[in-house]
Amino acid sequence: MTELLPNHFAGRWQTGTGRGTALVDPVLGTELVRVDSTGLDLAAGFAFARERGGAALRALTYRERAALLDATGKVLQANRDAYYDIATANSGTVKSDSAVDIDGAIYTVGSYARLGATLGERCSLLDGEAARLGREPLFQSQHVLVPTRGVALFINAFNFPAWGLWEKAAPALLSGVPVIVKPATATAWLAQRMVRDVVDAGVLPAGALSIVCGSSAGLLDALQPFDVVSFTGSADTAALIRAHPAVTKRSVRVNIEADSVNSALLLPSADAAVLDLLAREVAREMTVKSGQKCTAIRRVFVPQSQSAQAADAIGARLAKTTVGNPRNESVRMGALVNRAQLESVRAGLAHLKPQTEVLHDGSSHALIDADPAVACCVGPTLLGAQDADGADRVHDTEVFGPVATLMPYRDLAHALALVRRGEGSLVASLYGGDPAALAAAAVELADSHGRVHVVSPDVAQLHTGHGNVMPQSLHGGPGRAGGGEELGGLRALNFYHRRCAVQASSTALSQL
Amino acid sequence: MTELLPNHFAGRWQTGTGRGTALVDPVLGTELVRVDSTGLDLAAGFAFARERGGAALRALTYRERAALLDATGKVLQANRDAYYDIATANSGTVKSDSAVDIDGAIYTVGSYARLGATLGERCSLLDGEAARLGREPLFQSQHVLVPTRGVALFINAFNFPAWGLWEKAAPALLSGVPVIVKPATATAWLAQRMVRDVVDAGVLPAGALSIVCGSSAGLLDALQPFDVVSFTGSADTAALIRAHPAVTKRSVRVNIEADSVNSALLLPSADAAVLDLLAREVAREMTVKSGQKCTAIRRVFVPQSQSAQAADAIGARLAKTTVGNPRNESVRMGALVNRAQLESVRAGLAHLKPQTEVLHDGSSHALIDADPAVACCVGPTLLGAQDADGADRVHDTEVFGPVATLMPYRDLAHALALVRRGEGSLVASLYGGDPAALAAAAVELADSHGRVHVVSPDVAQLHTGHGNVMPQSLHGGPGRAGGGEELGGLRALNFYHRRCAVQASSTALSQL
Repeated sequence: MTELLPNHFAGRWQTGTGRGTALVDPVLGTELVRVDSTGLDLAAGFAFARERGGAALRALTYRERAALLDATGKVLQANRDAYYDIATANSGTVKSDSAVDIDGAIYTVGSYARLGATLGERCSLLDGEAARLGREPLFQSQHVLVPTRGVALFINAFNFPAWGLWEKAAPALLSGVPVIVKPATATAWLAQRMVRDVVDAGVLPAGALSIVCGSSAGLLDALQPFDVVSFTGSADTAALIRAHPAVTKRSVRVNIEADSVNSALLLPSADAAVLDLLAREVAREMTVKSGQKCTAIRRVFVPQSQSAQAADAIGARLAKTTVGNPRNESVRMGALVNRAQLESVRAGLAHLKPQTEVLHDGSSHALIDADPAVACCVGPTLLGAQDADGADRVHDTEVFGPVATLMPYRDLAHALALVRRGEGSLVASLYGGDPAALAAAAVELADSHGRVHVVSPDVAQLHTGHGNVMPQSLHGGPGRAGGGEELGGLRALNFYHRRCAVQASSTALSQL
Repeated sequence: MTELLPNHFAGRWQTGTGRGTALVDPVLGTELVRVDSTGLDLAAGFAFARERGGAALRALTYRERAALLDATGKVLQANRDAYYDIATANSGTVKSDSAVDIDGAIYTVGSYARLGATLGERCSLLDGEAARLGREPLFQSQHVLVPTRGVALFINAFNFPAWGLWEKAAPALLSGVPVIVKPATATAWLAQRMVRDVVDAGVLPAGALSIVCGSSAGLLDALQPFDVVSFTGSADTAALIRAHPAVTKRSVRVNIEADSVNSALLLPSADAAVLDLLAREVAREMTVKSGQKCTAIRRVFVPQSQSAQAADAIGARLAKTTVGNPRNESVRMGALVNRAQLESVRAGLAHLKPQTEVLHDGSSHALIDADPAVACCVGPTLLGAQDADGADRVHDTEVFGPVATLMPYRDLAHALALVRRGEGSLVASLYGGDPAALAAAAVELADSHGRVHVVSPDVAQLHTGHGNVMPQSLHGGPGRAGGGEELGGLRALNFYHRRCAVQASSTALSQL
């Protein structure tokens, strides 16, 4: 039997008492390790994090916590090779895709270490300026931000075991809030290994960072009023979390990132060079991590007159994408995470096909160095829908794999209306040459997107990519995307803080 | 039969088709008016507000919307006398208590008119500075705030029919978001009359302000992903709203203000003058609006050695409180809102009595100019609990009337722990003479309170009162208090805006 990974909980390593769930190599089909949380005393573990971890973190200043993050980043950097090995085996990703997860995590931790150092030797933050409460300036209102006295529970998705942990943990720890992470079982190994390295290095106080691998049963029941929960995953699970008594009755703050049918939009009057920028980005987004990115482009809108040209340009790029075993140097795109996801992508394609045509067929890609009967690999498929208005399934369905649909639009108003059919997305990208038109379209889409990524020829070599989540920018989106807000620089700290207005004599306020 | 008040919905006045629910004078027991929402086409009304009202408001700049608020405030000011008459009849409040609601509403509208004028001739807001996304400064991230393209549904409480409407509507309208208000039935008349005056004056675009009086059935079902809902009321109803599919599945943003067992805390080593400041504030909070304020003081903590002195000082003030018909000039405290609330207060007292003693007995107050068999009047009752730790009911129970409990504490740590037994409150007030000690205690309580109100001798004549909600300061609280955030100056606009990161060439960003 493979190794049963221990959980770090209540300040110690604890192995579940059950047989465990196997984690599998999605290319070779071999069992790698097992995870299990059976028998953990959840109430005790949450109390330990809340009381021991929370008190220790809150006793530190922001600058001191930033130093903990800096030390954490160094530990992760030192163990980077091991993380790549785990990602190859457990996620089936090629090296550049593993980097998005692993190096993205390390970069994000480092970013918050740098941001945190600017907050100084304080244990609470001032929020804005003091405001007078009358004509006489002696009595005023000053808002403060203080860390919530609870734990931050993260229930994470399989696609970013590394980044998904640290993009949440870095702001939480910087805020002074202890973390309990429940990684998705399929890829829990990498998150567990990172936590193990950081815990073993002793850089964080006891109780500051815990990990529970396996079932999430009972975790929400353990939440108390000052705890927060951040979930990344399906809309169905999100609805269950929102309806849990911890949230409905105990006012536990919840952040959700769920489905998103993201768009790329070629603005009217774009020239061939701009169209090529779009094609490059669409092909990249479809294939990076085999399309298993919540931010990936799913819908592509181009002017009717450029529809055929766009299909050709994207298809030509996709045709060059080699698919198969990520250990083979010639392979550009590895596997989906497991059989269930492979089946889900196939089902998604079947669901879309009645309303679409196939412009580039993923099944035309022969797998390299991988057994089609075993490996969870699939080639990239570009669909097309001539009747964009009638293709409701395309606007409603997130196929979580290398699949996107190209659609023509009549004019800009039509295009923007089609983008909005996603009913709230994480990100839309715009491609054009006119700065004023790009800015106007960005503001037009701002209310239904957490991020609008604007690509123009002047930033062709500089832009950070439609799907890459930068710690400087908000990550989240309204409606279907779950309504959450993560990252965005220091804005991320808001979720882990409570805001309070202190109304007092300015003599007392000067002591805050 | 009394007048059946029409609803303003879908841009026109619509009378319900049912018999209606009667609104009653809580002192005289007479029927005043009736309300009914039977037969309204909710989907059509929400669509009208969302599409017509929203588009019209969003087409205006912040400065133009601020001018609408200014005009709205003038309409309310012009009709102020009528509002006082309605409050006397329907809420049973004395003039100074009606003022908290009515003049508080007008002041809040005026505050947002002034704040909004500072936002300029723009239709979206910049949020913070642009941030570089790499070494090269050409590609950056700029966050923007844009109004959500939905309606704001307010489900309001009976105790503030005027202020409760406008403290929410002013920030919503300034944000460019149309409002649908469902006032609590018991006191809906005042809200309906204010909406009627503003609509008749024609100051707002069609669809910007709607009111539905009577049943709330179906209102939540009408919500769509970009709508928001703000609820003030009981924790039980709050839990139902949070668990509704609009929230769990459609990511409708929700703001909750629920129960709150607020505290007043006399710091250690306070002298007699400071103790008197506490006694004055406690007596005022217990009796203003007959204690029917979600911010009112429910628990009073004093050092053990000053417990008897505090009981005497508060009791002496309460003894002077004349109770009865608010039309009688000698009456200081009017009625509770209806029989149900009277029964609820009596039940609350009965619930607390096994764990408390009566320090000042409300039943000792003879009613002035009111029939005890009819009038919903009750004298103020101060309870005491020598065993503050054991009196769990006192910490858990919000008796929504003129009732508070005095408790002794051993030392500051004990006092702060007792305050925290409220599990999250709207406001705590601190009384002391040492600015550093007051500031430290304020920060200590900041995570579990939306507001900490600090009273020291230098602001004895200036401070704005424990229970008064100022538009400059956050209103809301974590945990039991519902986890919401309202007001706080321009912070209130966040709830009605979506934040979006625009990543683009600085050339495009300069066009935002």
